[in-house]
Amino acid sequence: MRPSGRKLAQMRPVSIETGVVKHAEGSCLIKMGDTHVLCTASVEEKTPPFLKGTGLGWVTAEYGMLPRATNTRNRREAAAGRQQGRTIEIQRLIGRALRAGVDRVALGEKQIVIDCDVIQADGGTRCAAITGGWVALRLATQKMLAARTILTDPIMDHVAAVSCGIYGGQPVLDLDYLEDSAAGTDGNFILTGAGRLVEVQMSAEGATFSRAEMDNLLTLAEAGIAELVAAQRAAVA
Amino acid sequence: MRPSGRKLAQMRPVSIETGVVKHAEGSCLIKMGDTHVLCTASVEEKTPPFLKGTGLGWVTAEYGMLPRATNTRNRREAAAGRQQGRTIEIQRLIGRALRAGVDRVALGEKQIVIDCDVIQADGGTRCAAITGGWVALRLATQKMLAARTILTDPIMDHVAAVSCGIYGGQPVLDLDYLEDSAAGTDGNFILTGAGRLVEVQMSAEGATFSRAEMDNLLTLAEAGIAELVAAQRAAVA
Amino acid sequence: MRPSGRKLAQMRPVSIETGVVKHAEGSCLIKMGDTHVLCTASVEEKTPPFLKGTGLGWVTAEYGMLPRATNTRNRREAAAGRQQGRTIEIQRLIGRALRAGVDRVALGEKQIVIDCDVIQADGGTRCAAITGGWVALRLATQKMLAARTILTDPIMDHVAAVSCGIYGGQPVLDLDYLEDSAAGTDGNFILTGAGRLVEVQMSAEGATFSRAEMDNLLTLAEAGIAELVAAQRAAVA
Amino acid sequence: MRPSGRKLAQMRPVSIETGVVKHAEGSCLIKMGDTHVLCTASVEEKTPPFLKGTGLGWVTAEYGMLPRATNTRNRREAAAGRQQGRTIEIQRLIGRALRAGVDRVALGEKQIVIDCDVIQADGGTRCAAITGGWVALRLATQKMLAARTILTDPIMDHVAAVSCGIYGGQPVLDLDYLEDSAAGTDGNFILTGAGRLVEVQMSAEGATFSRAEMDNLLTLAEAGIAELVAAQRAAVA
Amino acid sequence: MRPSGRKLAQMRPVSIETGVVKHAEGSCLIKMGDTHVLCTASVEEKTPPFLKGTGLGWVTAEYGMLPRATNTRNRREAAAGRQQGRTIEIQRLIGRALRAGVDRVALGEKQIVIDCDVIQADGGTRCAAITGGWVALRLATQKMLAARTILTDPIMDHVAAVSCGIYGGQPVLDLDYLEDSAAGTDGNFILTGAGRLVEVQMSAEGATFSRAEMDNLLTLAEAGIAELVAAQRAAVA
Amino acid sequence: MRPSGRKLAQMRPVSIETGVVKHAEGSCLIKMGDTHVLCTASVEEKTPPFLKGTGLGWVTAEYGMLPRATNTRNRREAAAGRQQGRTIEIQRLIGRALRAGVDRVALGEKQIVIDCDVIQADGGTRCAAITGGWVALRLATQKMLAARTILTDPIMDHVAAVSCGIYGGQPVLDLDYLEDSAAGTDGNFILTGAGRLVEVQMSAEGATFSRAEMDNLLTLAEAGIAELVAAQRAAVA
Repeated sequence: MRPSGRKLAQMRPVSIETGVVKHAEGSCLIKMGDTHVLCTASVEEKTPPFLKGTGLGWVTAEYGMLPRATNTRNRREAAAGRQQGRTIEIQRLIGRALRAGVDRVALGEKQIVIDCDVIQADGGTRCAAITGGWVALRLATQKMLAARTILTDPIMDHVAAVSCGIYGGQPVLDLDYLEDSAAGTDGNFILTGAGRLVEVQMSAEGATFSRAEMDNLLTLAEAGIAELVAAQRAAVA
Repeated sequence: MRPSGRKLAQMRPVSIETGVVKHAEGSCLIKMGDTHVLCTASVEEKTPPFLKGTGLGWVTAEYGMLPRATNTRNRREAAAGRQQGRTIEIQRLIGRALRAGVDRVALGEKQIVIDCDVIQADGGTRCAAITGGWVALRLATQKMLAARTILTDPIMDHVAAVSCGIYGGQPVLDLDYLEDSAAGTDGNFILTGAGRLVEVQMSAEGATFSRAEMDNLLTLAEAGIAELVAAQRAAVA
Repeated sequence: MRPSGRKLAQMRPVSIETGVVKHAEGSCLIKMGDTHVLCTASVEEKTPPFLKGTGLGWVTAEYGMLPRATNTRNRREAAAGRQQGRTIEIQRLIGRALRAGVDRVALGEKQIVIDCDVIQADGGTRCAAITGGWVALRLATQKMLAARTILTDPIMDHVAAVSCGIYGGQPVLDLDYLEDSAAGTDGNFILTGAGRLVEVQMSAEGATFSRAEMDNLLTLAEAGIAELVAAQRAAVA
Repeated sequence: MRPSGRKLAQMRPVSIETGVVKHAEGSCLIKMGDTHVLCTASVEEKTPPFLKGTGLGWVTAEYGMLPRATNTRNRREAAAGRQQGRTIEIQRLIGRALRAGVDRVALGEKQIVIDCDVIQADGGTRCAAITGGWVALRLATQKMLAARTILTDPIMDHVAAVSCGIYGGQPVLDLDYLEDSAAGTDGNFILTGAGRLVEVQMSAEGATFSRAEMDNLLTLAEAGIAELVAAQRAAVA
Repeated sequence: MRPSGRKLAQMRPVSIETGVVKHAEGSCLIKMGDTHVLCTASVEEKTPPFLKGTGLGWVTAEYGMLPRATNTRNRREAAAGRQQGRTIEIQRLIGRALRAGVDRVALGEKQIVIDCDVIQADGGTRCAAITGGWVALRLATQKMLAARTILTDPIMDHVAAVSCGIYGGQPVLDLDYLEDSAAGTDGNFILTGAGRLVEVQMSAEGATFSRAEMDNLLTLAEAGIAELVAAQRAAVA
Repeated sequence: MRPSGRKLAQMRPVSIETGVVKHAEGSCLIKMGDTHVLCTASVEEKTPPFLKGTGLGWVTAEYGMLPRATNTRNRREAAAGRQQGRTIEIQRLIGRALRAGVDRVALGEKQIVIDCDVIQADGGTRCAAITGGWVALRLATQKMLAARTILTDPIMDHVAAVSCGIYGGQPVLDLDYLEDSAAGTDGNFILTGAGRLVEVQMSAEGATFSRAEMDNLLTLAEAGIAELVAAQRAAVA
């Protein structure tokens, strides 16, 4: 019934290749089916001004999409002179999600910038960015620990994300672009490795929904996240 | 226990004054305690380009905050030359929420722009903007029906929003600024008059959360929304 | 003969409500007929860079108009990414006018920012902004004197503004929108409480004018300003 | 008593050289002492959108200052990415002033753009720009009449401008930079060849002023304008 | 003597992987050593306005660098709100170079946009972008010919680019980042498959140069280009 | 055969008038036929941040074109809010070229900004800007030496530029606008007084070229540069 032939609770194949950019402190190319996102972590010795003198670190994210990551070419945001609302919304979400898994005291007054650039898009780019962004972040903190520029591990747990939605009247896991465009309701679920909730964003894109439907999607998401966390674990081992 | 002395499930006083801007097709000043938002609806005869020829209408929103709506003055976005990420995120949410209650076929190829400008802020401005924005929208469509520029009522149901969060370990309804700043987890809940869910945004601002906690907040929200819908009903009567 | 039925030398009803924004050091909502402007004063502990070390304070103003303050919706300047020429011209005028009534040595190295936001427009918004802006400024300096953050009163005199023009061949006081659109010549007159001139801006909008006509308008303005100063005095008492 | 040794009512030497840019329909280099402004007129076959179908023409102006026209280098506005408030205020004034001397019905649906670029500044650049801009405009309309692209002369009268101020307690004509910086009150006076007023802008830059002082400055200005109109007449003969 | 141990006239290993972005009409990932550039070609049915009605097509390019393509993170141009001068200079060069190999009459009124995004940088990114951009362009035109949306092949010849410079007093081919930073003179040479010159840009970065030195570099470049053209030929076969 | 009647190797008349802007440390108006560029040099006591503490000085350039320097009016870049790609490319070239003739150790931690503003354009504006910019730079350094703010002359040699191209199948020197528009190949050649090469930019604008053709143009350029250097020498004597 799904365009891809997947079962309702079946994820797309996930792969995470690390060390893809030699300059970055951490990097990976995450593929969730045909959605490919390049994630890098850059460690900076200073935090944003509002944290100066607090002893706390910061993790932030930026998101971009190459102009031809999509079926029709999108105007390059650098050329347009401003980031679209969608871009800004997504990168704020990525940063907020990743910070939820970080002990900012342990990080100290440093900033880690996670850049997530979509090379090819087929739905679920923000979720892939969070899942891959966590891997880049984890690799960078491992490197910092090895170099003893930090002494306590600031990573408290995995953070991963998956989208679910109601497609053709059925709850389905890990929407691709065709499903995403047609779903009446969809949501993004961000969880920790321990299964705690970090962020839930459910939205009626054409059809309002009930508490029961939300519950069903969340149950699907929990299973998907477990699979993503396993992939993260393998990647950073 | 709450800074304001309210009970856990107690809303702030809500008032909605309509007809506050003589030029607008619909307008109201909504007050949720010390949060005051001016909402206007502007009917335009043409839709955005991507809808041209589809027969569908559009509802969109813009959000702003006067520089001194807050405790310390914020830089005016018009002077800065760009809207902040937070502004863009909020106005996208308002537009999406209000569209969920509109029959865009009945509206036809027209656009209604809802402007929500915060005069004074004390937490929950985006929720007040949605609740008040719906009133402005409702008044504008009543006017259109009366003028017979549309023949079928495009308003399918009320849409209202409230924030809830976990404050001092307790689930509380309708956070004010002091609570919002201190809450480990909070969420915005947007529901219809019939109690269907339009959008749920829960976020760990410092502490991850469980499914049970999310459920508790949602139950609180349902009660709050009922009160807001009653206030909307009285305002547009 | 005037669209509103007013006499040639008759002002619109003026009301000034103070304390309308709880966060601001000074605030008022001024109404000149259907022109409604919200004015706030924000005290900042530092001056612009060019005054650093001079011992002099600064008063500046920003002006905005809510998108639906007017008969047809104006594009939000924050969304457009730049302030219009008209906005910039007006806010420079407001700042310059208010500074003429301030002893900047007594103020010391502080800055007071006056924000004037038009809620509803019906002509004469810049004049209302100056008259109301002065009230916000006066309230803020009273608060500073009471808190002993300044020791000498920096307010030297009232500053108020009114527009006059030649409408239907007759000199009229306090133009509303219909008159303003049709006037061949109009001007803005800014005076102190003592009747000294602060700024005169007369402009031929379609018809050049004579010295005698300018004199007549100035005489009208003097009477109008006296009324405005009385309203200011009552508001800040 | 004046830094330049001039008498109170003495203008700086004025010269207007025409035909200085071969591509423009009209051009001149106006020098008022050490203030040098290059003015060009460009005729465009279409008006701004708001005039489409009205049969009316438009005259508008843009103003710029080369980075090193002043004693210390100013940042290039094109590099900064926005025009300063002062620039916008000045170019709106120039356009408004020149339109006051034009019969927009006779011009028909064409636009003439007057560019005024300050090569060297020593006070009074906006006045020089208006006086020189009129010459460029006049030359362009002569060319249009000769080419019979318009049949009726749209120029109704000369428009010229001069600044006056109170310097050292005395009313002085045609302020240079040193005087302008020190004047307590100054004003720009724009008049027609027939001596009618087009625009008066008087401003208290440190000291408020009386009606009598304004009158004195206006009398000085009338004499100065007569001299400028004679120079214009000689230039376009 | 070269940091990489290469001989003076030795290129870095070149690889060109095609079909890397499923949505694009043509795409490749070109690697010249550690410089990796993703190139896509997007076919658009309409040309820029200045070509409307001429029957001529257009090829243009945009260039970007992911923030962490370099050793220290660069600010994202989309976030900064403007493209850097270097970016603009490079993308104009790429477009100009590729157009030199295209018969724009054969292309007809279509536009092909070549996006070149640097994933990892180690010197010579603009040359890699041209060489890889040509491959994406060639693949797109092959697809158009196959689909019969064009009937005549618009590709007249290969276009490829390489940098050369004087490093340590010796002429060297295909500079990497270390060499590029230290070279006194360097140049970019763009040639066709037939060995005709398309663009030569030689620049004294610290040391002026002689005609003989320029000749030597050009001879090196001719050899390098032959190697690149062979790699292009293999990639598009 | 040339539109102007010039011989193949004949330059346009060159004139360089110095001291044209009283405020600048160095200035000239260079005319190459109908191309007129105003060049000023501004000495600033501090360098850009990246040079702080290095003891090295900096020379940079900005380029602009008055809106009506060309046959049809160009939009003012300050009004458009961004510099065009062409402008950025040119000003980077001018700065790079002039730095090649400067001993940045002798200059010390100062910056000299060369502003080149085109008053009237007829082809070759970037070359005129470099040749005239060098004169402004030379005058400014002479003034610094005289004032003993620097003790060693930082000017190592003349820098001048000329364009050549293949027009009507023939190599021609110093292209004017008509030739530039029609040339299949053209180039800009920047040389020192001693005849060393500073920058060569040859570009196929419609027709690729051979090494022999490039050689011929370079030979022409050498002769033209000698003439320009003589004019520079006369101007600064």
